[in-house]
Amino acid sequence: MYTRNAWYVAGWSSDLEPGKPFAIRILGEPIVIYRAVGSDRLVALEDRCVHRLAPLSLGRCEGENLRCMYHGLLFGPDGVTREIPGQDLIPPKARVRAYPVVERASWLWVWLGDADKADEALIPPSIGPDHPDYIMGQGFLDYDAEARLINDNLLDFSHLTYVHAASFEAGDQFAHSLPKIETLDRGIRYSRWAPNARGPVGRRSEDLLDNYMSYEFLVPGVLLMWSGGFPAGTAEACAFGPPDRSQACANVTFTSQAVTPMTDGTARYFFCWGPHRDHGDEKLRDLLINLALQAFNEDKVMIEAQHKIIALTPNPTVMPTAHDRPVTIFNRMVERMAKDQSTG
Amino acid sequence: MYTRNAWYVAGWSSDLEPGKPFAIRILGEPIVIYRAVGSDRLVALEDRCVHRLAPLSLGRCEGENLRCMYHGLLFGPDGVTREIPGQDLIPPKARVRAYPVVERASWLWVWLGDADKADEALIPPSIGPDHPDYIMGQGFLDYDAEARLINDNLLDFSHLTYVHAASFEAGDQFAHSLPKIETLDRGIRYSRWAPNARGPVGRRSEDLLDNYMSYEFLVPGVLLMWSGGFPAGTAEACAFGPPDRSQACANVTFTSQAVTPMTDGTARYFFCWGPHRDHGDEKLRDLLINLALQAFNEDKVMIEAQHKIIALTPNPTVMPTAHDRPVTIFNRMVERMAKDQSTG
Amino acid sequence: MYTRNAWYVAGWSSDLEPGKPFAIRILGEPIVIYRAVGSDRLVALEDRCVHRLAPLSLGRCEGENLRCMYHGLLFGPDGVTREIPGQDLIPPKARVRAYPVVERASWLWVWLGDADKADEALIPPSIGPDHPDYIMGQGFLDYDAEARLINDNLLDFSHLTYVHAASFEAGDQFAHSLPKIETLDRGIRYSRWAPNARGPVGRRSEDLLDNYMSYEFLVPGVLLMWSGGFPAGTAEACAFGPPDRSQACANVTFTSQAVTPMTDGTARYFFCWGPHRDHGDEKLRDLLINLALQAFNEDKVMIEAQHKIIALTPNPTVMPTAHDRPVTIFNRMVERMAKDQSTG
Repeated sequence: MYTRNAWYVAGWSSDLEPGKPFAIRILGEPIVIYRAVGSDRLVALEDRCVHRLAPLSLGRCEGENLRCMYHGLLFGPDGVTREIPGQDLIPPKARVRAYPVVERASWLWVWLGDADKADEALIPPSIGPDHPDYIMGQGFLDYDAEARLINDNLLDFSHLTYVHAASFEAGDQFAHSLPKIETLDRGIRYSRWAPNARGPVGRRSEDLLDNYMSYEFLVPGVLLMWSGGFPAGTAEACAFGPPDRSQACANVTFTSQAVTPMTDGTARYFFCWGPHRDHGDEKLRDLLINLALQAFNEDKVMIEAQHKIIALTPNPTVMPTAHDRPVTIFNRMVERMAKDQSTG
Repeated sequence: MYTRNAWYVAGWSSDLEPGKPFAIRILGEPIVIYRAVGSDRLVALEDRCVHRLAPLSLGRCEGENLRCMYHGLLFGPDGVTREIPGQDLIPPKARVRAYPVVERASWLWVWLGDADKADEALIPPSIGPDHPDYIMGQGFLDYDAEARLINDNLLDFSHLTYVHAASFEAGDQFAHSLPKIETLDRGIRYSRWAPNARGPVGRRSEDLLDNYMSYEFLVPGVLLMWSGGFPAGTAEACAFGPPDRSQACANVTFTSQAVTPMTDGTARYFFCWGPHRDHGDEKLRDLLINLALQAFNEDKVMIEAQHKIIALTPNPTVMPTAHDRPVTIFNRMVERMAKDQSTG
Repeated sequence: MYTRNAWYVAGWSSDLEPGKPFAIRILGEPIVIYRAVGSDRLVALEDRCVHRLAPLSLGRCEGENLRCMYHGLLFGPDGVTREIPGQDLIPPKARVRAYPVVERASWLWVWLGDADKADEALIPPSIGPDHPDYIMGQGFLDYDAEARLINDNLLDFSHLTYVHAASFEAGDQFAHSLPKIETLDRGIRYSRWAPNARGPVGRRSEDLLDNYMSYEFLVPGVLLMWSGGFPAGTAEACAFGPPDRSQACANVTFTSQAVTPMTDGTARYFFCWGPHRDHGDEKLRDLLINLALQAFNEDKVMIEAQHKIIALTPNPTVMPTAHDRPVTIFNRMVERMAKDQSTG
């Protein structure tokens, strides 16, 4: 169950060339996105011609309009038909749905709910490769699995100990102790101190640090994580609460990740990661992205296998553990939103 | 919705070697066709042994009979079991369906309706590579799409302007003006003059011609198209009605095309095309076939994509345009035939 | 319809390395089998973690236990959860199903029914590559077909005349005369004399022999076949009844074969075959296994094609012949067992 009243990541800005329509499914709906050639205007339409249901994504951009290249109907950026070759009359119903679409933090965000509720303030405050303070790499992975299973994975980092033992060399503490969880308006916040530790994998240090990581996981499925190392003793000095991030002395990185449900059984997982300029360079960025690709493929193997097991199970039920609290909070929140929108 | 009371093209004669059973699905039914070794008799049977439902198309031709090569039952060309190894008694119900099958104009035609209604006069008067007046190439393409969508495509040539802009360089007139449409007993006739034009692609001329094209599209899904060029002024002299074809001065060609529904989501599209002997040679035939292959693949990309969009749409409805009149006429005709046969 | 109260072959012992979990589906159920590292204990569990349904077969063997490598739950060989990282309490329902599993005659046998009915006396008395008297090769083939169709194939050897005309050069007698069939408690026995014949393919002899073959086909789908040649005259001397096998003078071989239903439309077919030590060597074993692979692929082509035809047939019904008596007896026996277990 997913909420429509949310901004979903549809792609990386940099993957959308002007004048080249781009197709994606979100919540099962076929959507075409294009950037007008002259004006750079961004448009997202239902990817289904009103005439005979051909995909507009096989069409041709003409200024701010998009022409279906089957029988030539022309659509404006509002989804309204502008031309029907061979006839003068354009019936009022000749329109496809237009979706609010915004470009922010290097991502294309599409609002799936009622257009009049499309509040840009609800776009999660992600940081992308265009941010001046970070040096980020980016990518995406396609999953043959339900998006919710990826959300669940990202909401419970106890899997790091097992799934990512090889890649992140995550250690036991992710599974054996519970993080701090806070409930937010549209998500949860996770935070964890690892005091008296070496730096993380790829950045092991001689000196012991107090490492801090904190992420928000926000509707519809966006993870925004900051992590960094502090002088030993900081955790205790903060009473294991949130530190003053400006005091971090090592290894500050940020990662934004977004899970987009394409169909019932497929999802696209977008991610970027990289060091703060004061804590790394392009070389470290590449190291982190390679590490991430290794780790995210470890997740993919497990989650796609889990998806298959669930699919063959008559009445699949889970047995939540202590680590599942954020999973449960988040999923209930989304269910409530989905219910509100269907009754509202 | 398709009518059973029709002759469907099952294959090219030239693809059926004597003694080699050939399998095809038509309207979802598994059918095996073979040419007897001694007699050249053509047989079409249900491709499903009465014993344990093995496909007879994996069987062995023995004269005019076909032996199932699983447990050895032998079937006559009438579908009646001739032998059951290991027992003498042959139960009366031990028979598979035999389909009327006819070889004509290089095609194998199978009647799907009641055998006693199989009137050969209903076979569309196609012209094939065996015709003395034309020099034709032939082929087929398999579609992952419903056959009706290919019929719709062939019934509305306004798509030439868009889908085949590159291959046929068709120009705007196909979309911007309406052709003449006549309703026939079992189909429609489409015709169009293009006065004062150069010859068609691949055969561009210095002189201006009046080009005429006319096709019939006949139940169950057969297109038979004549086209040719006339001296400028002919169109007007004919009051834009049909010309005397014997007066054509250039570029006379003929194409026969047939769409066969295999299953709900697959179809086979057969085609041949070539110049009249007085208007071309083998070289031109090859040029035309290559052009057709390019164009038909353009159609295939669009129609398979359209099929996918329709499949994911809960209640797919189309919005017919002025160009859809022949589409609507033909589909209603087929629906009526399908209804008649089910109530008749 | 299959019975749960039976031992199903899950694999070859030799394919199960200590400490490496092995996944298989049987009757649709996901099962993981592993051999403990220290103790060589064999364990079969439901391949689905109680927590979030991840497959335990992606897990890690720890002594006799198996750890889910998603979030770290640890399961004992009885299926009971031993550890849940991050919490002390282990709910009583936190257990996966444990299946009785036995290693015998080189096969891993899993009992699908109620554990308290798992009687090892019901394991078919197969002979495998570990048997001192035979020199056997082994293998398996995966089918995209329902297991029952493979059982049916093995219960009616009249197909040898047709399907295996090329490989086994089986001759007409398999189809044209009926074998002797006896009904057993959990299966049937098939036997057949071929008097005054050369040896079988690959072992053709100058002298005429009386060849005898006899197999049992036992629930759930296990074929155990002995064959050998006797001095001419033996068949008649035995009144065409079973011979004294110790008097065989040539070509004694044994083959064990097992059909395991994985899902509704897939099955795994296990087989071994080879000569008695007194009648052959490794070279003959290799010849026989290559012959078997050729023949079993002939079966596979036919049965998978049959499966597809059945799948597209609205109400598939078969028309049994005289050769189908053992097929009918066996299938009714299995249906009765399946019914008994569901009402019992």
